[in-house]
Amino acid sequence: MPARVDGPIGLFDSGVGGLTVARAIADRLPGEQLLYFGDTAHLPYGDKSPEAIRGYSLAIAHHLVSLGAKAVVVACNSASSVAYEALVEALDVPVFNVIDPVVDEVARLGLERVGIWGTKATVKSGVFPSKLAKANAKIHVSAWATPLLVPVIEENILSGPILDAVINGYALPTEAENVDALLLACTHYPIVAKQIGQRLGEHVALLSTPQIVAEHVALELAKHGLLHTESLQRAAHQFVVSDFTPAFQAIAQQFFGEVIELREDHLWA
Amino acid sequence: MPARVDGPIGLFDSGVGGLTVARAIADRLPGEQLLYFGDTAHLPYGDKSPEAIRGYSLAIAHHLVSLGAKAVVVACNSASSVAYEALVEALDVPVFNVIDPVVDEVARLGLERVGIWGTKATVKSGVFPSKLAKANAKIHVSAWATPLLVPVIEENILSGPILDAVINGYALPTEAENVDALLLACTHYPIVAKQIGQRLGEHVALLSTPQIVAEHVALELAKHGLLHTESLQRAAHQFVVSDFTPAFQAIAQQFFGEVIELREDHLWA
Repeated sequence: MPARVDGPIGLFDSGVGGLTVARAIADRLPGEQLLYFGDTAHLPYGDKSPEAIRGYSLAIAHHLVSLGAKAVVVACNSASSVAYEALVEALDVPVFNVIDPVVDEVARLGLERVGIWGTKATVKSGVFPSKLAKANAKIHVSAWATPLLVPVIEENILSGPILDAVINGYALPTEAENVDALLLACTHYPIVAKQIGQRLGEHVALLSTPQIVAEHVALELAKHGLLHTESLQRAAHQFVVSDFTPAFQAIAQQFFGEVIELREDHLWA
Repeated sequence: MPARVDGPIGLFDSGVGGLTVARAIADRLPGEQLLYFGDTAHLPYGDKSPEAIRGYSLAIAHHLVSLGAKAVVVACNSASSVAYEALVEALDVPVFNVIDPVVDEVARLGLERVGIWGTKATVKSGVFPSKLAKANAKIHVSAWATPLLVPVIEENILSGPILDAVINGYALPTEAENVDALLLACTHYPIVAKQIGQRLGEHVALLSTPQIVAEHVALELAKHGLLHTESLQRAAHQFVVSDFTPAFQAIAQQFFGEVIELREDHLWA
């Protein structure tokens, strides 16, 4: 079945973090319908094995395409790190990850000392340092696994001593490397970008994945002739999770920035 | 197939937290072989729906019994809260949870103002307050969801400003209730019991689930005539996870307190 121009843009993540990417795409492309899948039955991906993440990602992406998605955005750094190539091979719609557009932007800006904060899976994959080095041979990259930011943000702790202690613990080694930019390589982290920026100071540029990815998706969909044309007529966004809890409902609204309704879809039952 | 006296004691948890219970049982019953299953593909259970936790628990428990387990210990408060009755009904071996023995111990000690720290699923289930009230009508129970302790402990942060900030954040409302005992109703928490005790002071008694449960399991297995008799001949403990990562291997050893080897078992594949 060929992708239809008025089909939704599919996105998925292990949970609600990818909703920051969904928000940025909704802002950049207000005429497009979004179909979001949060794999909350397997959340978080950051601690799972590459094989497991690949298996979940393929199942979800096929599901999104079967529901009419005209493109699939892997709105999760862990899945982008280990499952992107398998998805490109398996799907016949455009697939976007949250890594390559960011690598291109770092190269475009000519940044030379870049720090990366991400989950264990993303950092361990080494995908950012290796791609950044290919894009700019002179670049110096330091990466740190900063996994505690995820549960802290999901607990809605967006200020105060716990967030300060967690950010400070990760900021100390980062400062020692004198980076001139910090890449927030996890879709959750933009939620506390301001607090991270305040701690690191103005001399460290923060790179916000969602905006960079949204711009890339917009350009590529236009190139493929896949942009919806009747912007006033789009269908309502759809938000699906593999295991529903009221807590996800609450946090999802905060990540997406507006009232939404999560629907449960037993993809794994 | 009737349970054999020299079969292993089966235990399961969403991850490695239940290894604190396994440790206590291994110490209390050194002649017994343990068969531990960590459902790391679905970790953590604390954020999952009751239906999902029940489904995972039944599949794992049947798996343990099929591997020869003569008893099943639900070494996880979230699963004990929502899946214990279903397991008792489904299995023909003794099933133990990590709630009832603790409730009995609180009643036996005559404690009257009890605080509870647990995951969201455990606290939301209301199972501890309701069972404690049945055991002692005069008891005053206050429960708080303290979910951040889990990822902090799993990150091996067992001292310093991050742990202090997290414990302090949860200690403030607990102190306001003037409890005379605090029940650590999550199998992870005993790992930082000392730090919690230092913050709350000596006038608050800490109840350690693993020891209480181990004592109960020992008494009940003896009652059922299921204790292994040749203590010097026991087979090596077995540790299985549903998704293997090197990080689990490292943290598992810390929780169990000795070098162990995790094996992956694709129960869900």
